[in-house]
Amino acid sequence: MRLPFDITDPRLAAAAWSRLLEPGDTAGGQVLASLGAAGGLDWLCHVAESPASLAKGVRQHVERWAPRLADLDIRRELDVLHRLGGTLLIAGEAGWPAALADLGHAAPPALWVRFGRARSIDFPPGGAVAVVGSRASTRYGEVTAAEFALALAEGGITVVSGGAYGIDAAAHRGALAATVADHPPTVAILAGGVDRLYPAGNEELLRRVLGAGALVAESPPGTAPGRHRFLSRNRLIAALTSATVVVEAAARSGAFSTANHATELLRPVGAVPGPITSQSSSGCHRMIREGQAVLITAAADIRELVAPMGEHLPPAPDVPAGLLDGLGAEQARVLDSLPARAGAEVASLVKVSGLAPGEVRSALGLLELAGRVRRVGTRWARA
Amino acid sequence: MRLPFDITDPRLAAAAWSRLLEPGDTAGGQVLASLGAAGGLDWLCHVAESPASLAKGVRQHVERWAPRLADLDIRRELDVLHRLGGTLLIAGEAGWPAALADLGHAAPPALWVRFGRARSIDFPPGGAVAVVGSRASTRYGEVTAAEFALALAEGGITVVSGGAYGIDAAAHRGALAATVADHPPTVAILAGGVDRLYPAGNEELLRRVLGAGALVAESPPGTAPGRHRFLSRNRLIAALTSATVVVEAAARSGAFSTANHATELLRPVGAVPGPITSQSSSGCHRMIREGQAVLITAAADIRELVAPMGEHLPPAPDVPAGLLDGLGAEQARVLDSLPARAGAEVASLVKVSGLAPGEVRSALGLLELAGRVRRVGTRWARA
Repeated sequence: MRLPFDITDPRLAAAAWSRLLEPGDTAGGQVLASLGAAGGLDWLCHVAESPASLAKGVRQHVERWAPRLADLDIRRELDVLHRLGGTLLIAGEAGWPAALADLGHAAPPALWVRFGRARSIDFPPGGAVAVVGSRASTRYGEVTAAEFALALAEGGITVVSGGAYGIDAAAHRGALAATVADHPPTVAILAGGVDRLYPAGNEELLRRVLGAGALVAESPPGTAPGRHRFLSRNRLIAALTSATVVVEAAARSGAFSTANHATELLRPVGAVPGPITSQSSSGCHRMIREGQAVLITAAADIRELVAPMGEHLPPAPDVPAGLLDGLGAEQARVLDSLPARAGAEVASLVKVSGLAPGEVRSALGLLELAGRVRRVGTRWARA
Repeated sequence: MRLPFDITDPRLAAAAWSRLLEPGDTAGGQVLASLGAAGGLDWLCHVAESPASLAKGVRQHVERWAPRLADLDIRRELDVLHRLGGTLLIAGEAGWPAALADLGHAAPPALWVRFGRARSIDFPPGGAVAVVGSRASTRYGEVTAAEFALALAEGGITVVSGGAYGIDAAAHRGALAATVADHPPTVAILAGGVDRLYPAGNEELLRRVLGAGALVAESPPGTAPGRHRFLSRNRLIAALTSATVVVEAAARSGAFSTANHATELLRPVGAVPGPITSQSSSGCHRMIREGQAVLITAAADIRELVAPMGEHLPPAPDVPAGLLDGLGAEQARVLDSLPARAGAEVASLVKVSGLAPGEVRSALGLLELAGRVRRVGTRWARA
């Protein structure tokens, strides 16, 4: 079988493979790894003519790929991409995200990218975090996603999400609110082609994501965002980022698939707790309970997930000062033994506190120095 | 020094020691372990007359205990207890909670108990759970504590708490709402004497706890609930129960001390998550995040904490049925490739799904059997 374009051109060949393969087809990845995109395509065009002669294990794959050879002219999809001002990234060439190597044979052969202010999606370690969650989100989840995304983007971390309704949209929106000049605040990884701003209700939002960051797809323009494609797209979200944070997820949210991919890729996963009465938090609670996800309460917790060990320790929680703060155990006990208003003799404090007379006197001295008690004749009172 | 009662009576001696020692005094615990309550009291009465001759390490303790010998007549406190219908439990005698042995030398020498419907606080393994939390609670925390306590009590588990405002009170209240006949729904461990229904605002509640369960104190009647006494009281709550669940705790809640005691005693700790915007949940989130506590979303999770491994696995979460449920990956992909309304030829499904023709036909056959697709001439459509 002859294709109407130059299949020895490695860019055209890689683009063609991203049309032939469904996302995450590891058999295709093996062909590409051993023969290269051009060599593999040449081989496929040959064997497609008589698949019956192939060993069964190979034939079943060729029978998947071959039907799409019939009307394959990847130059059309590339034309669409170029008219949109987009860029084709090819595995192993400049601009290819190094992190995708972790996907092994499930890595895509090419990425179809529309860059806005972003010039690269090859994020440095800790440079990008996935913030994802249910489409069926609550106001609480949306506010949380937006606040975290804003703080991450302001702190120089690109927020990657899937452009869906609910938490994804809130994450993109929050990141877009950041005032940053030197890095893209947010990038969307789409399940269909980059020519489709899907879902329709997020079209305006995705335009803004494109302007400030980039839109990325592994399938060529024209590809419809089929349901199974969302699940395989999630592996890209997990792979392109240094950590995945699930803000809200009900029992069967697609966010789990992103989290599971991140776990398989040995990237840390965070999840945000919420009221136990909220179904939208139930998936997060399960992941935390089962140890798959770290409990996240603030953007600082997320920075800690992706930072080199100890570099971004979150600030110690704000602890209001209490009456017994900064006191030794014996001083605290003596102070506690002093009646609220009236004073007390040392002998009485000894009995009430259960401390020895010397201990009581020494504690009173330190408390007096600290301005917490005062002497009134032979008695002691609170200052 | 002579005391006005028979110090060779082991019950009187143990009761006296619970007046002499502050809660958790391990030096006192060592004296009791080596000399017994009566022998130890006899020894103390002797050495108290000339403490200067003692080795420094011993003297400092004697100087703590001796001042309280002066006006010690424990028969007065026992009279108060008996007038209240209470019972003195002595370490090692019938009715003594076996679980307190885990406290080692920090175990109390005696417990002052007012039994209501409860006849014992020597709970079997899994028979009692501590439900505790902040006095500064939210409505969310109170409802949660009450619901969990009700479910635990209905399930035959006694809810132990500290009688304080907020979460403690909600836990007692929830347990009291249970309709149970064969075991006490709830028991309160007080920081002061059992003659003091403290805090005053909970007096009526504590009367109901007493009626349905029991009130327990390690200090004799007349003891004021000093602040440090709350912290040492918490070790009893942790030790008497098989697990401790913190429902809400702000940064410096006393509930942490109960949780820390439980951890030291190798008892499991649970914590309930809440909105990350709620200060009252921040302590719970920290304990979960740091791995000290298991995340708890339902009473079933608590039963699992205290049950023999695997006996009380919580029910699988309720997952609503989805469009692709129960389908193999290829069937799902074929169904997903079928246009919503119009039908499609097999050849078209092959291209859209990226599956081989044989796989598409086999998937269609299974989908037809399942009633998910129907044949329309040479085309296939969703059923």
